[in-house]
Amino acid sequence: MLTRPPAEIGMPLEAVDTPALLLDLEAFERNLRHLADAIADQPVRLRPHAKTHKCPMIARRQMALGAVGVCCQKVSEAEAMVYGGVSNILVSNEVVGAPKLHRLAALAQQAQMYVCADQAQNVADLNDVALAYNVQLAVLVEVNVGANRCGVEPGNPALGLAQQIDTAPGLRFAGLQAYHGGAQHIRDFQQRREAIATAVESVHHTRNILQQHGLECELVTGAGTGTYPFEAASHVYNELQAGSYVFMDADYAKNLAADSTPWHEFEHSLFIYATVMSRPNNEWAVVDAGLKALSVDSGLPLVYGAAGVEYSRASDEHGKLVFHDASHPLRVGDKIRLIPGHCDPTVNLYDWYVGIRNQRVEALWPITARGALL
Amino acid sequence: MLTRPPAEIGMPLEAVDTPALLLDLEAFERNLRHLADAIADQPVRLRPHAKTHKCPMIARRQMALGAVGVCCQKVSEAEAMVYGGVSNILVSNEVVGAPKLHRLAALAQQAQMYVCADQAQNVADLNDVALAYNVQLAVLVEVNVGANRCGVEPGNPALGLAQQIDTAPGLRFAGLQAYHGGAQHIRDFQQRREAIATAVESVHHTRNILQQHGLECELVTGAGTGTYPFEAASHVYNELQAGSYVFMDADYAKNLAADSTPWHEFEHSLFIYATVMSRPNNEWAVVDAGLKALSVDSGLPLVYGAAGVEYSRASDEHGKLVFHDASHPLRVGDKIRLIPGHCDPTVNLYDWYVGIRNQRVEALWPITARGALL
Repeated sequence: MLTRPPAEIGMPLEAVDTPALLLDLEAFERNLRHLADAIADQPVRLRPHAKTHKCPMIARRQMALGAVGVCCQKVSEAEAMVYGGVSNILVSNEVVGAPKLHRLAALAQQAQMYVCADQAQNVADLNDVALAYNVQLAVLVEVNVGANRCGVEPGNPALGLAQQIDTAPGLRFAGLQAYHGGAQHIRDFQQRREAIATAVESVHHTRNILQQHGLECELVTGAGTGTYPFEAASHVYNELQAGSYVFMDADYAKNLAADSTPWHEFEHSLFIYATVMSRPNNEWAVVDAGLKALSVDSGLPLVYGAAGVEYSRASDEHGKLVFHDASHPLRVGDKIRLIPGHCDPTVNLYDWYVGIRNQRVEALWPITARGALL
Repeated sequence: MLTRPPAEIGMPLEAVDTPALLLDLEAFERNLRHLADAIADQPVRLRPHAKTHKCPMIARRQMALGAVGVCCQKVSEAEAMVYGGVSNILVSNEVVGAPKLHRLAALAQQAQMYVCADQAQNVADLNDVALAYNVQLAVLVEVNVGANRCGVEPGNPALGLAQQIDTAPGLRFAGLQAYHGGAQHIRDFQQRREAIATAVESVHHTRNILQQHGLECELVTGAGTGTYPFEAASHVYNELQAGSYVFMDADYAKNLAADSTPWHEFEHSLFIYATVMSRPNNEWAVVDAGLKALSVDSGLPLVYGAAGVEYSRASDEHGKLVFHDASHPLRVGDKIRLIPGHCDPTVNLYDWYVGIRNQRVEALWPITARGALL
């Protein structure tokens, strides 16, 4: 990595250069423990999604608290995890094209790899490359449970593909991938629960059909931070893929709890540290964190712990803050924390986490899967 | 850089792995020449913005066609340019905080550095660090000409700051930074022209006041791809900062020309190369390029050269394509080009340009200022 870290171990927080990706280690650790505890009595394993954090140091922390491995979305992301000591990985996605198939099969020589498929030709390609590399790939059928993205339809279409996998000499049928992405950010608790209830029903139905044809599902996997309690209690899913729970972004903070109050199950642990670089008048200020320092696809960031200030506009390298009160004391050189709108693509803009405890830099963790697109 | 390039020199385009950042070298070269030719008879120099491309290989191409140097938004971006052989740089932005000030002054020992200021304390800090490093920093006063972001107001506020710079022993007053960001994407030609006419007037006024007080402006700089002809013809601005013209993104393509037809002055040269990874039915397909492969802050990407297909939704690692016609032949494994909505933050997601000529990979250029946030 060419970019130098914005901090040094031992530095006080105020000395960290900006923009920096701050990780509040205590909030982060509470989030990890909370999810581990919340599912301890449920018939599910946790396989958190590494697409959120892209960092083997975090993956190994999750596994130390009971996670069985991680999910990745890209083969190159999985490579970064294996390089960082993680050896049980579900690529919760289709892998298409010769270069990626070769990399996947080669990786399966180093680690336990699971991968998804939703199409007959892709299953044939997976089989060919597995045989060429003398590995057996564990393949899940991806089922569309409402996200309307990848995946075959539940029921017989899933059965047909599972049978093809089961009879392919280089492959092993390993279960069902059934992630309902669209349900994660349904604000209303009941509607969120209903969306997953529908998904559970179609997965249950599909799993039963497979069983009737002699096909057992080692993994029935899905769920995100917004819906995990429902899948965990379903007795159909046996693995959860939640990722964002480690950080809790501003978008997830808009979800509502069962009593329609704001949902506070996880704490904000991830922040963009930014410096006020201009305060031309009483109405606004400008910070040094814009579109290249935070992703605005799911809304603008929130200003943390600062009443009467709003992040109102992002340009490439600037963020504009507006004040409700013209006498707000924020001035040039002051540093603030922003809660990113969407954690995953924001993390992907940085090479380093700056881990903070007691207002001091305690960790610098490289984000080794940053930019792992292939 | 940990990420491997998605291609090799000599490879046919179809073999490039995805997502990849493609550069159509012929369109790119025509864009470079077009702007150089368009301003050849105007009383302005070109100092293109490197925040767009973040690549010294491109900066040096621009300079070979007459550009006097480049603009950068960040000190670390400027460092990457100096490492890559560019030695005349305007940081068209305020630089705040000790670590960045030290890096700026140290860089001024290696290259001609200009920087902007909009506040008295920052001028004092620039002076201190210049003296400490035994360099003279060239400082421009940033003037707010309608962007309502950084900058002092035109006229006397600019004069006061210019005088402070002029009398500071470590600094040299070098002119005015007057960029009207908000005007670049005004769709209507006349409105765009009027916005810049107003900016030109206030810069002219300010320059005259400075002259009356014995302060000459070596640089009067601003302009972007959307407005450059107006500043170029103003006889007030003497440098242009256009950046996006090298690539021409989908957002700029929404601007209108003088006759209210679509504005076609520059060609799309930058593309996201993506693979269809799922085609579950006749209604939609999924490509492997989502929020981590393209920035959607200024709208979704366009599908290049493919009629009847629309990129309808981006999630982290997926892009959903919808078809106007259910019989569309696109299938799993096919590769398409996407025109990014906004080039600058999209480029910042990649480590490599894959330069293409005659459907073959001819260049792999590292994006060395990718992630240069500090």
